[in-house]
This record gives sequence, structure tokens and C-alpha cells, in this order.
Amino acid sequence: MDIKEDIIEASKRIKPYIHLTPIITSQTINKITGAELFFKCENFQKMGAFKMRGATHAILQLSTELRQKGVVTHSSGNFAQALALAAQNLGIKAYIVMPSNAPEVKKNAVKGYGGLITECEPTLDAREASAQLIQKEKGATFIHPFNDFNVILGNATAGKELLEKHSDLDIIVAPVGGGGLISGTALSATAFGHNCMVIGAEPINVDDAFRSIASGKIEHNSTTETIADGLKTSLGDITFNLINNHVEKIIRVSEEEIVAAMRLIWERMKIIVEPSSAVALAAILNSKSEFNNKKVGIILSGGNVDFLNLPF
Amino acid sequence: MDIKEDIIEASKRIKPYIHLTPIITSQTINKITGAELFFKCENFQKMGAFKMRGATHAILQLSTELRQKGVVTHSSGNFAQALALAAQNLGIKAYIVMPSNAPEVKKNAVKGYGGLITECEPTLDAREASAQLIQKEKGATFIHPFNDFNVILGNATAGKELLEKHSDLDIIVAPVGGGGLISGTALSATAFGHNCMVIGAEPINVDDAFRSIASGKIEHNSTTETIADGLKTSLGDITFNLINNHVEKIIRVSEEEIVAAMRLIWERMKIIVEPSSAVALAAILNSKSEFNNKKVGIILSGGNVDFLNLPF
Repeated sequence: MDIKEDIIEASKRIKPYIHLTPIITSQTINKITGAELFFKCENFQKMGAFKMRGATHAILQLSTELRQKGVVTHSSGNFAQALALAAQNLGIKAYIVMPSNAPEVKKNAVKGYGGLITECEPTLDAREASAQLIQKEKGATFIHPFNDFNVILGNATAGKELLEKHSDLDIIVAPVGGGGLISGTALSATAFGHNCMVIGAEPINVDDAFRSIASGKIEHNSTTETIADGLKTSLGDITFNLINNHVEKIIRVSEEEIVAAMRLIWERMKIIVEPSSAVALAAILNSKSEFNNKKVGIILSGGNVDFLNLPF
Repeated sequence: MDIKEDIIEASKRIKPYIHLTPIITSQTINKITGAELFFKCENFQKMGAFKMRGATHAILQLSTELRQKGVVTHSSGNFAQALALAAQNLGIKAYIVMPSNAPEVKKNAVKGYGGLITECEPTLDAREASAQLIQKEKGATFIHPFNDFNVILGNATAGKELLEKHSDLDIIVAPVGGGGLISGTALSATAFGHNCMVIGAEPINVDDAFRSIASGKIEHNSTTETIADGLKTSLGDITFNLINNHVEKIIRVSEEEIVAAMRLIWERMKIIVEPSSAVALAAILNSKSEFNNKKVGIILSGGNVDFLNLPF
């Protein structure tokens, strides 16, 4: 298996369906951090997050027969919207299992992209049971939000685009939730970088990935109390292995550090990023000496923010 | 006087000191408006607003002798910051007269750019007296925030850049405060457009420009109650004449329309614009039939927002 070729092929496949997002810089934030930062703006991606890449790629890897029966996932976050829009773009059905207590705004976003919502009890067991029922009844293919190699290959195209423009990056930092983004980024760093190190960033309140690497097995969170609502999930077996093998380390940050980094991006760069995206810059601000005088890529994972619940 | 040549020269002069800002589009907002919109992102300009262009150009037009004595203005808004930063970039002093009740955050921003603040009573008379005293004592040159032809020529470079990329724009919409931006935009539309119409956008609560065009003389506002804090000012004689001669019409919008347009830009385009910038899109949403199927440029004037006083 040639990972580099796989990512190049994934990139070609999804190209008609995604935005080639810009890479931007900020002199002010370079000064503050002491590093030279290159922000890959997946907040400008279609539907507002990198997940559009993985969702599109996973569907494109299905046979015509399977596509016709639709796809199904369970998610209350960006992946629900991504799979719905990716399916709509490709003219197929997306069944989205969402917990009954998911915010109306998220349900409406999924409906807006043509997703067919099935509500279930807000437990993981109920979600999985609902998704399995849809697989059985409709013949739809289950697409996992992150623990799926085709999703990860799609996500990897963001890092590829970043390294194609800046092949001399010393480090790339990405946030870690289920691990789908950082796994893809790590594959791209290996394939397209030149000794490019990948570092993960995680809220200390949900530091399951940090603890998983320390203990050598998948750990879980006892709380989901973080503003970075995209990073609450635990790793899957595929993402755990990729992170264990290809990610240098994980830096943990406090809620205050996340909010401060998010505000810095909003105020100085004049762009909207969601809290999960700000975690990567928070990690650099937290550990400046590790990044001093380095060329550092940052994947800004998304820009879907609830404006009625801003932290400032 | 060849305006086109003047704007080209202004553009060359200020080039080393300003950003060539991006022009971005939004399929979603095109669908909503029924027009094809091109947003010129002066929110990404240095210090966060188009005023950096005019301030820089006005200083560059001074002789070396005059520059050495510094410049002075009275402003509590973006122009104060713009003149301070432009002066700092050119290695000269900027004296900024600000009302004593100006928010600390604005004073700190001016100080951050090296501006020398003189506080005065919060009246126009006190501001002008303070500025005159500084002119007399320091020999500093007064630079008016908008009613100055060199400031207007500097501002005009934003419209020039927009029309160089999209020479077939049917209309350009810009917000109207003191009229410095729209005057420059109108000059650029004449010089670089092909029958490109310029339309102003103004909050109905401070519709002095609309009334000035109707009455044929400069009108003032009896209230300054608008969220678009950059647009409270009345016109000057230079901007009044340019608007009267070169601006097709002014569309007025409510506070609710401004907030809705600002939210639409934040949510769908994932960029931070200040309320004054959103007034231009609000005008298009208010009068869709005038823009239907047209190619429309919008100058997003700035992105300096007080995050502690968001309208949503």
C-alpha cells in the first residue's frame, strides 16, 4: 500500500466537491508566538469544516450499487452535516441518527443539506442500534465519522494541500477529537513533508488521547465539559494506532487557553473559527519554546459556531 | 486633473504599506440575494479597515519637512488607529485627539500603534480646538478623517483593486458615514469601471447623506443611535460634492437589517466584519430587485468589533 499515492488519488476524487481552502498568515500572531505560522482554513470549507473531505471521499469509494442504497451515520456534530451535504452533492440519500436532545439548529442544518434524520435516545447504545436498524432495513452503508480509513484519507487531503504550498514545515498542529483529522494529517506529513513532525492539541478536560498514548490503550473521558465540542469523542482503533505511530506528542490546554486563542484568531485574523479549531493555536501559545523559530502549519478544523453561546 | 492617473499613483505610493486584500464570494449569499456578489475584504486590511489606505496616502503626500513635524487628527474610530499606524510605519509622530469618554479599548489600540493621545471634552468644538492647538504648538499637519482629497484618493485604491479583478461589475455598494469611502469608490468606478454604478448604504437612524442628496445641502443627524458606529458622521463639503455628482442613490436600512446582514456574513462566510460593513449587504437584501442578476461589488469596510457588545 502506497499511502502517498492513496492520498493523491483521494485528492483527485474529491476535488470537484470541495473547496481548495486558503492558507493565511498573521504577522501579529507570529510575533506573539515566536513561530512562523501557516493557517490552513478549513473553516472556509464547504459546510464549514474539514469533515466535508472525509465524508465525500468515503461515499466516492462505494460501488454504484451501494451508493444507491444510501449512507448512514450517527453524529450530532459537523460530520452529520458533512455526510448529508456530500450525499446530496452525489445524488444519494444520507440517513443521520441524532440524539433527541440535539440542538434544533444542528438538526435544521442537517435537514438543510437534505439529510434524513432519525432521532434516538441520547446514549451511544441507542445511536448504534438506530444506525444498525437503518443499515438492515434500507441497505444503507454505515460511514463512521472518523474511524474509517477512507474518511481519514479524505481528511488527509487538507494536510497535503498545506504541504504542497509549504513543503518545509517543521511541524503541523491539529486538534484531536476522535482522531480522524490528526490521523490524516500524520499520513500527509509522512507522505509529503520533509521530517515534518505532527503534534496533537487537546482540551485538558477531555484528554483521552493524551492518556491513551500514555497507557497504550484507548482511554475514555469521564466528563465532556469543554467548549471545544468537536473534541469530546474517544479514539477508535484505527485512529489510535495511527496516532500512536505517527504523532509526536499531544499538548493539553485549559478552557481559558482555548477561549483566549479563539479570541486572538477572531480579533487579529478577522475570521470565524470554532472553539475546537482554536485548540491548536492554544497549544502553541501554551508551549511556545517548542515552536520557537519553527515553521508551523495549523489546521483550522472548522467555523461552525453557535453565536448565541459565545464565550465572550 | 486626471483622476485615473491620480488613483494609479496613489496605489503605487501606498503599496508597500498596505495589504492587497482578497476578494471573496459566497454561493449561499448569491442564492439568497439573486445577485453575483464580490466582497472586497478590507476587514483583512492592516489595522482592520480601509482607512489605512487614506491615512497612509495623506501622509505620503506631505513634504519631508512637514512629515518631520508629525500629523494630527481627531477621531475616536478607525481613522485614529489608521493614522497612528500609518505614521508609525513612516517613522513620524501622530497626535490623536480623542474624547475623554472614548472606550479604553480604542485608546489602547491607538497607543498600541504608537499614537500620542490628547484627551478632550466630548464635543466637536473641544476636539477641533485641541487639534488646532497641537497644529500650532507642534507644527503638525491636520489630516481630516474623510474630507481630504488625498485621503479619498487613498481610499479609492480599494475600488481600483476590485475593478481590476472584476472589470465588468454593474454596481459597487459601499457604506456611507463621512463619505470618504464611497467618494473614493465613486472615483474608481468612473476611472476603472465600464458603466459601473455606485450605490451608498446608510442606517436609516443616521440617514444624513440620504437627506443631504435630497435637499441639496449637507444635513446632520439628530441622533447617533446606530450599531454601525462608523457611519454616524455627517458629510464634508468635498465628500458631499463627490457623492452628489457620482453616487447613483443611497439605500437606507434598519438596525434589524444591519444585524441580520452581519450575522449572515459571519455565519456563512466565516469572516468577522464590523456592523458598518454589513450595512452594504443589508442594502442589497433590502432592495433585491435592483441587484437581481447583476454583478455587484461590495466593499467590506472593516472588521474591528467590540466582542463584549455583540448584537447576537
